[in-house]
Amino acid sequence: MHIELNRRAGVPLAEQIARAFEARIASGLLSPGEKLPSVRALARLLGVSLVTASKGYAALEASGAIRCVQGKGCFVSRTKTAAAKAATASLDGEDAAAHAAADPYAWQHAVPDYLPRAQLWHHYQNVPATHQLHLSAIQRELLPSRDIMKQIQSLMSEDHALLTAYGSFQGDDDLRGAIARLLGKAGVRTSAADLLVTSGAQQGIDLVARTFVGPGDVVVVEAPTYNGAIDVFASRGARIVSVPMDGDGMDVDRLARVCDRARPKLVYTVPTYHNPTGTTMSAARRKRLYELAAAIDCLVVEDDPYSDMYFDRPPPPAIKSFDRTGHIVYIKSYSKLLSPGCRIAAVAASGTVLSRLVAAKTAADLGSPLLTQKAIYAYLASDRFAAYARSIRATLAERCALAESLLRRHAPKGARWTSPQGGLHLWVALPDGCDDRELTLAAQREDIAVLPGSVCYAADASHRYVRLCFSYMPEDSLAFSLARLGRLMRETRAT
Amino acid sequence: MHIELNRRAGVPLAEQIARAFEARIASGLLSPGEKLPSVRALARLLGVSLVTASKGYAALEASGAIRCVQGKGCFVSRTKTAAAKAATASLDGEDAAAHAAADPYAWQHAVPDYLPRAQLWHHYQNVPATHQLHLSAIQRELLPSRDIMKQIQSLMSEDHALLTAYGSFQGDDDLRGAIARLLGKAGVRTSAADLLVTSGAQQGIDLVARTFVGPGDVVVVEAPTYNGAIDVFASRGARIVSVPMDGDGMDVDRLARVCDRARPKLVYTVPTYHNPTGTTMSAARRKRLYELAAAIDCLVVEDDPYSDMYFDRPPPPAIKSFDRTGHIVYIKSYSKLLSPGCRIAAVAASGTVLSRLVAAKTAADLGSPLLTQKAIYAYLASDRFAAYARSIRATLAERCALAESLLRRHAPKGARWTSPQGGLHLWVALPDGCDDRELTLAAQREDIAVLPGSVCYAADASHRYVRLCFSYMPEDSLAFSLARLGRLMRETRAT
Repeated sequence: MHIELNRRAGVPLAEQIARAFEARIASGLLSPGEKLPSVRALARLLGVSLVTASKGYAALEASGAIRCVQGKGCFVSRTKTAAAKAATASLDGEDAAAHAAADPYAWQHAVPDYLPRAQLWHHYQNVPATHQLHLSAIQRELLPSRDIMKQIQSLMSEDHALLTAYGSFQGDDDLRGAIARLLGKAGVRTSAADLLVTSGAQQGIDLVARTFVGPGDVVVVEAPTYNGAIDVFASRGARIVSVPMDGDGMDVDRLARVCDRARPKLVYTVPTYHNPTGTTMSAARRKRLYELAAAIDCLVVEDDPYSDMYFDRPPPPAIKSFDRTGHIVYIKSYSKLLSPGCRIAAVAASGTVLSRLVAAKTAADLGSPLLTQKAIYAYLASDRFAAYARSIRATLAERCALAESLLRRHAPKGARWTSPQGGLHLWVALPDGCDDRELTLAAQREDIAVLPGSVCYAADASHRYVRLCFSYMPEDSLAFSLARLGRLMRETRAT
Repeated sequence: MHIELNRRAGVPLAEQIARAFEARIASGLLSPGEKLPSVRALARLLGVSLVTASKGYAALEASGAIRCVQGKGCFVSRTKTAAAKAATASLDGEDAAAHAAADPYAWQHAVPDYLPRAQLWHHYQNVPATHQLHLSAIQRELLPSRDIMKQIQSLMSEDHALLTAYGSFQGDDDLRGAIARLLGKAGVRTSAADLLVTSGAQQGIDLVARTFVGPGDVVVVEAPTYNGAIDVFASRGARIVSVPMDGDGMDVDRLARVCDRARPKLVYTVPTYHNPTGTTMSAARRKRLYELAAAIDCLVVEDDPYSDMYFDRPPPPAIKSFDRTGHIVYIKSYSKLLSPGCRIAAVAASGTVLSRLVAAKTAADLGSPLLTQKAIYAYLASDRFAAYARSIRATLAERCALAESLLRRHAPKGARWTSPQGGLHLWVALPDGCDDRELTLAAQREDIAVLPGSVCYAADASHRYVRLCFSYMPEDSLAFSLARLGRLMRETRAT
């Protein structure tokens, strides 16, 4: 493993070491029973003293994250978290030592990597639960897959180059044209030439990070924020600074003060139906955020998968709609709205920021598949899209109302949430004494998956929240799950 | 821009600065007429003295790469290379200064990035030539796109989850199973559980690099090598060490001596019908390379897009077939062979190297699209695949023979190449006095695109080679192009 120590962070190095190991354990990058490097090896790897390395392990042992066996070494504990539950081959220290001797791949543990955390990987897939409230997605039966398939079938009978050609690295011209027109209608002035097609918003975030963020660069995120973005910025060695939110989104005054102390290279925000909290940044703050970015020449990544999913009225204009100077990199995903399986999003940017992103996309994968791009293009350009968008908005509004009424009925006093005006989830503050990790585990035992809120913080995680998606499971599952969760909130609080 | 200076490299810092700018200019990341940072700004950015920064610019000016105007600053020259030709808005220093004042995106030039080069982006797309011999691809009409489309159509009528679900981050189970069986037949023992599906081999290389390669890590490549791999390793800040090749592939004795001096983190090789040279590493060297990697615990990336494209007999066993310890990361692309537009490849790895790659894939794009995975699966599992593979081998052998006979007839004395036993290209040594850049430009004027060999070197580029793909253009185009190229070799030599 590779651990970035920051000698100017004001956080003791031993504590930084302990936190880095905790992040790897929470991510499943270190498995229960896995042997850690010796104190000597760790000290050498990180360029710290034996005392510091040893203190780091002592802190981990004190918190129960690892177990040290005299003469054998230190091993990741069998923990009580979901992480440990999911791991099938959970071993004790002694077993692990014997196992390691027989393991032809044991040498690999000593190969350093540049993945400080990978919570996305860990928290979304292989979650063995029938009732999946941990995702941020729309129920499959509600998606327009039949219509998109029809488009694919008619495309395939006309165009045989769909499979044979590398697409344009920047993305299919038709698709970029259609997206530019849709964004224009929503107030985002861009053009096909200023769009880059990516494999979902995730790749858009990743391309910006790999191009513009390096070790020690300051990246500002909301607290909480999308945990997939934290993974990406952390893997670039960024110094992630969190800015708190209120009912109007990121606190831009606070951001301005942060900028005085540590000039950010990039600000990442989900201003509309924020993930995970569901809040929406006010128009005034959006404008102010753009002006701030333009004043200090930092990039803003505006991640916008949810703005089409409003309940009553459209959200405020995108931050990108204020942009005249190319400071805003706007990421529009159609993945959640239309087809997670097609992995289609677009990044709107300008100038050399755009050309450098195209160069990075080329190095990353030589461009997205043409077939799925053309399929989404044909659907977006058809008259079906507008009707679908209207109908899914109504459905999501109903689902949200249903989820809120179920929570009001079943959740104990003290559970709180703010009604979102769009999007796919509720961010529920748990009653006093109820911990997100315990609730997540208890829910898993009842066949329900929720996202523990603490994974959405880059640092100083709160354990008082869970994110519940109201749009992925059918209504009966929602009714069952929220009734159970209400009971579990009471029970875990009592223990 | 971000420039990695290595203070222990034994290369003067001013020279490192000049080289870094040259790479960015050659990549199109700096455009003709673009203004460079002031000497003062550059010195501050890189933490070097004003004298060093100034020397770097002086070297660039001496070579003609930039032009410095007293009181205005330094600007990228209008160069004579294809790069400059392709740039539409080529400006002189003075024009550029005026232009910059009116350019709302001018501030972006000062935003550092982590893209030291992007030759892949620059050299493959937007090459305005009818006769495209610069690619490494099979002629579209020869690919089995109709059969793959039929498979997609029948899949779509059966399975509606293809568009609605995120696929497994690691890749579709069916596809991984089918690839594991095919690899098994070719002697590579792996299993569905040990495979990761990626968006082409390019993403496979990139995932390995982002996971395991960081600033200063030593990465060994062949000289020459696939230029897309150089882009990726350079973007990670790797110290790239080139090992020469002979008719049996990479010189593994030389590699062993390199390892004594600078322990590599990773060795990247294309052992079978090497890109760009077409040579094949002998079985003895493959075994030796595996043993060397296992002895010093370094990873070997075996990039294998061409092994199914043999002419007479199958190539030696993959390096991966010797692997018992998880040192070999094997990348099998089906993109070139079946469908560049589907972007499907698989990475075979083991242990935590695999799990860390899956975590990286998740952060990169949440998994590849399901539809294209299922399409390739259905085709690979069908009885059509074996018949196609036989027939394309015969066709490629004929095309190669045709290209060689055309070269023998038209190329001047002194042009040399080694007959490949498979793959898609010829690596042609130019006659004395003929430079790859001049030939590439001259060919472009005659509507023919070739790949200048110099882009395939990580350092100390030879300008004596071009790579010619014999499989992408139809036979009449090949006949036209090679006759012209023969004439141009004579003419450019004479000037």
